[in-house]
Amino acid sequence: MTLSLKQEILNARWRIDTIVHRTPVLTSSTLDNIIGAEVFLKCENFQRMGAYKMRGASHAIAQLHEEQLAKGVVTHSSGNFAQAIALAAKIKGVKACIVMPENAPAVKVEAVKGYGAEIVFTGSRPIDREQAVNKVIEETGMTFIHPSNDMQVILGNSTCTQEFIETIPGLDIIIAPVGGGGLLAGTALAAHWLSPMTQVWAAEPQNVDDAFRSLQSGQIEINETADTIADGLRTNLGDINFPIIKELVTKVLLVSEEEIIAAMWWVWERMKIIIEPSSAVAVAAVIRYKDQMRGKRIGIIISGGNADIRKLVVSS
Amino acid sequence: MTLSLKQEILNARWRIDTIVHRTPVLTSSTLDNIIGAEVFLKCENFQRMGAYKMRGASHAIAQLHEEQLAKGVVTHSSGNFAQAIALAAKIKGVKACIVMPENAPAVKVEAVKGYGAEIVFTGSRPIDREQAVNKVIEETGMTFIHPSNDMQVILGNSTCTQEFIETIPGLDIIIAPVGGGGLLAGTALAAHWLSPMTQVWAAEPQNVDDAFRSLQSGQIEINETADTIADGLRTNLGDINFPIIKELVTKVLLVSEEEIIAAMWWVWERMKIIIEPSSAVAVAAVIRYKDQMRGKRIGIIISGGNADIRKLVVSS
Repeated sequence: MTLSLKQEILNARWRIDTIVHRTPVLTSSTLDNIIGAEVFLKCENFQRMGAYKMRGASHAIAQLHEEQLAKGVVTHSSGNFAQAIALAAKIKGVKACIVMPENAPAVKVEAVKGYGAEIVFTGSRPIDREQAVNKVIEETGMTFIHPSNDMQVILGNSTCTQEFIETIPGLDIIIAPVGGGGLLAGTALAAHWLSPMTQVWAAEPQNVDDAFRSLQSGQIEINETADTIADGLRTNLGDINFPIIKELVTKVLLVSEEEIIAAMWWVWERMKIIIEPSSAVAVAAVIRYKDQMRGKRIGIIISGGNADIRKLVVSS
Repeated sequence: MTLSLKQEILNARWRIDTIVHRTPVLTSSTLDNIIGAEVFLKCENFQRMGAYKMRGASHAIAQLHEEQLAKGVVTHSSGNFAQAIALAAKIKGVKACIVMPENAPAVKVEAVKGYGAEIVFTGSRPIDREQAVNKVIEETGMTFIHPSNDMQVILGNSTCTQEFIETIPGLDIIIAPVGGGGLLAGTALAAHWLSPMTQVWAAEPQNVDDAFRSLQSGQIEINETADTIADGLRTNLGDINFPIIKELVTKVLLVSEEEIIAAMWWVWERMKIIIEPSSAVAVAAVIRYKDQMRGKRIGIIISGGNADIRKLVVSS
C-alpha cells in the first residue's frame, strides 16, 4: 500500500461529500454502563436510502468516464445496494439497471423502481444473476459495479469512517459488520491511514462465519448456508477486499441469532432508532464480548435501517 | 404576563441544562418534498427516559425547598410522567411515590421500579387516583407534582422549544401534540417570549378533541371517550395551562386514527426513528394540513419514543 492510497481515500470523501449525508453519532449512557466503555454509534441508518451503501455506489459512479456515464451502470442486488445504485444513478442523471432475484421483497422492488431504475428479474442462484448481468452488459454496454468487491465502492465506503474519526477522535476500536466485505475493507483503510492507533474489528453471525474462517485460514472461505436473520451478511468475501481485510482487520467476533435479535430489540426500544438485523450484529458483538471492550472508546458502525419491521416483529 | 415570566423561562433552562439531554433535530428531504416545506423534528424521543416529560419533572423537583426535598414527591401517571418523576427524583436523591392504575402495562411498572420509586396501585378512575394521592400526602408529607397542570412543569417543558429555536432559527410554526396541555403551554411560552414571530399550533386526535373544542368555546371542555391510539393525549386541559394556551396558541389541527397510524409507520420506516403514537399525531397533522404549511419552516415536537412496538405492530 502506497501513499497514493491515502490520497485516494481522502479524494473519495471530497468526491461524494455533497451527495451523501454526514450521519450523526449517537450514544447511550445505559449502553455505556452495560458495556463498561464509551460506545459511539455511527448511524448510517440515517444515510440517504437508509444505508452506508449510498457511499460506495455514489463514489463508483463518480469515478466513471463520460462514455461510461452515457451508457449507464448495472449491478445485482436484492438489498440495499440495489437502491443505492438506483438513487446514485438518478442523482448523476445516468441510466441504471438492477438485476434482482424473482423472489425479492416487493417493497425493495418498489423502492428501486421509485428511483427510476430498470429491473431485470432472474433466478436466485449466483450463476443466474451472473448470466443476467452479462446479457445486460452485452446489449447495453453498461458498466458493472459490484456491491462489495470493487475498489471504488470500498473507497466510497471508507468515507463513513473518515467522518466517524473526525467526529469522535481517539477511538480504540471500530467494529463493523462483515458480509461481502466492502464496508469492512473501507473501514479498515480509513482507520489505517487516518487514525492508525484505532483497531478495526468485524462482527459476523456465527451461522455464516465465512470471514471468521477466512482470517484463520488466510484464504477466502465460503458459507455453506445463508441461515441468518442478518440478510445483508450472507455473502462471501471477494478477491479485492479480502487482502485489505487480511492485512488490516484485527479479529472477527461471532454472535448467535438470539444475540442479534436481542441487540436489535434493545436498540429499537432503548435508543429509539430502527436498525436492520445486519447492524444489530455489531451491537450484539459489543455486548457479548464486553470484557474485551472495558474502559475503551468503541465505535460501532450502524450500517443501515432498512428493516422489514412488521416481519421482524412477528418472527422475533 | 410580565417580563419576570421571560426570566423564569430562561432560568428553567439554566436549572435543568445539566440534567436533561439537548436532543437532536432531524430532517428528511423526502418529508420536505411531500409537504412542500422545510420540516424539522425536535427529537425528544432521544430524551432521557424517552420523552420530554423529563424536562418538566426535573424542573419541578429543582424548584422544591429543602424540607420538601427531604419528604419526597408524589404524582399520578401510568405513562411517561411516572418514569420522568422517578428518574428525576433518583438523580436528585429524593424519594418518589407514583400512583398508578392497577391495569398499567407491566413494562411501565418495571421501568418506574427500576428507577427506585415506590408504586401505589389504585383504580383507574380519576377519583381513585386523587384519593390515593391524598392518602400518600397525608401519611408522608410528600409534595404533589401534577403531570401537566403545574407551572414549574410547564416552565421545564419550555426548555425543549428554547433549544429548538436556538438550533433552528426562523421557524414559522411549531406544532406540538396536545393532551394534558403541559407541553403545549411550555412550547407556547418559549416561542412567545423568545421567538415571537413563530406561531404555535397544536395537533390532536379528533377522537379526543377537547383542546380543539376548548379553544372554540373559550373554556375547558372534557373528552367523553379515551378512544385513541395516542395514549398520551387522552387527558383534558387544566386551569393553569389553559389560559396560556388560550392566549398564545393559534389553532388546533385534528387528525384521524388512520392518519396517526400511517404517520407513525412513515416515520419508523422512512426516518428510522421510533416515535410513540402521541408524537405521530403532530406528524400526521403536518401531512394532512400540508396546504397550510407550504413554503414555510415548520418545527414538529416529537414528544417521545416510548412505544410498545410489538403491540403497535400487531394492532396497526
